[in-house]
Amino acid sequence: MPKISEERKSERRADIVEAARRCFARHGYEGATVARLEEATGLSRGAIFNYFPNKEALFVEIAVASSERLTSLWLEHGFRALLGAIVHEDPDWLAVQLEATRRLRTDPEFRRLVEEREREFVERRDERLARLRPQVRDDVPVETTAIFLSLVANGLALRLTMDDPQPDLDQLAELVETGVGRRPAR
Amino acid sequence: MPKISEERKSERRADIVEAARRCFARHGYEGATVARLEEATGLSRGAIFNYFPNKEALFVEIAVASSERLTSLWLEHGFRALLGAIVHEDPDWLAVQLEATRRLRTDPEFRRLVEEREREFVERRDERLARLRPQVRDDVPVETTAIFLSLVANGLALRLTMDDPQPDLDQLAELVETGVGRRPAR
Repeated sequence: MPKISEERKSERRADIVEAARRCFARHGYEGATVARLEEATGLSRGAIFNYFPNKEALFVEIAVASSERLTSLWLEHGFRALLGAIVHEDPDWLAVQLEATRRLRTDPEFRRLVEEREREFVERRDERLARLRPQVRDDVPVETTAIFLSLVANGLALRLTMDDPQPDLDQLAELVETGVGRRPAR
Repeated sequence: MPKISEERKSERRADIVEAARRCFARHGYEGATVARLEEATGLSRGAIFNYFPNKEALFVEIAVASSERLTSLWLEHGFRALLGAIVHEDPDWLAVQLEATRRLRTDPEFRRLVEEREREFVERRDERLARLRPQVRDDVPVETTAIFLSLVANGLALRLTMDDPQPDLDQLAELVETGVGRRPAR
């Protein structure tokens, strides 16, 4: 194989991720066969699997990257910004991620891959909670508040996949922020 | 076919629904073949399809019945009761319903069936909102509040399918109720 620069490698990796994401979104997890992934990326299976060991790993990589991007946005720009980003996600991609949650229950190898990839994410959990704590009420554990916020975000993603009418995001954020906001000093 | 009483018919219908629900939960939507549905119900395909025109209709019937049961619980016993009921649902059944949301996007006949079955549910929407209105704040439209509550409930169901640790439900309900509760009179 001809040598390519690190920069070119990193670009190609990003291209594969984006083309594969669209392929999974369009055809579903099962339907995104290796042949279709080759067609979508314009690369041979050999070239693709040079970057990712197998289809499972490719999918998990895309899903984890997508979830990390949204979490950073939330921590840096607040919950309203997260809600806005979710409604701009590709509903087909959200739907294929939901479809994959069932695979998490039925395919131990898939589950192992997800857990391995999520480990470092979980390790940074305390850091994320420490950033959230000063912004929220202190009479409910910050762990519960973080879960509450994730339920609203995931519920919104799920609603988007069902093509149900979306709520007004400012009003939604107002309900959430009243729920989690610091109580006025007594 | 021997005649059976209306009562016996209604019992048998309920038996089919429960056995089929477990079969879908265990094998997934695709994996629940007609042969497996026969095995699970102990009935021939002819007998099953005497009650439900096809597998799609059987699945939609179970999913809609399950969602109506939870909505009634919410309206009659409050949001905390709904949260408690969700965490007692079978996670495999919740996961197969999520898997089916992708089918809603890709299979027009499946979508048509769901929309038809949901029509009467939607028709009772105004009645449900009227019951919710006096319990919640009036500076945000009750439609948004209803969606907010459904996002939390669906987010919790989704979390359950991923086997992530569940939040303390009393604390969660406290956050939600602070968010949607009536403001103190000024």
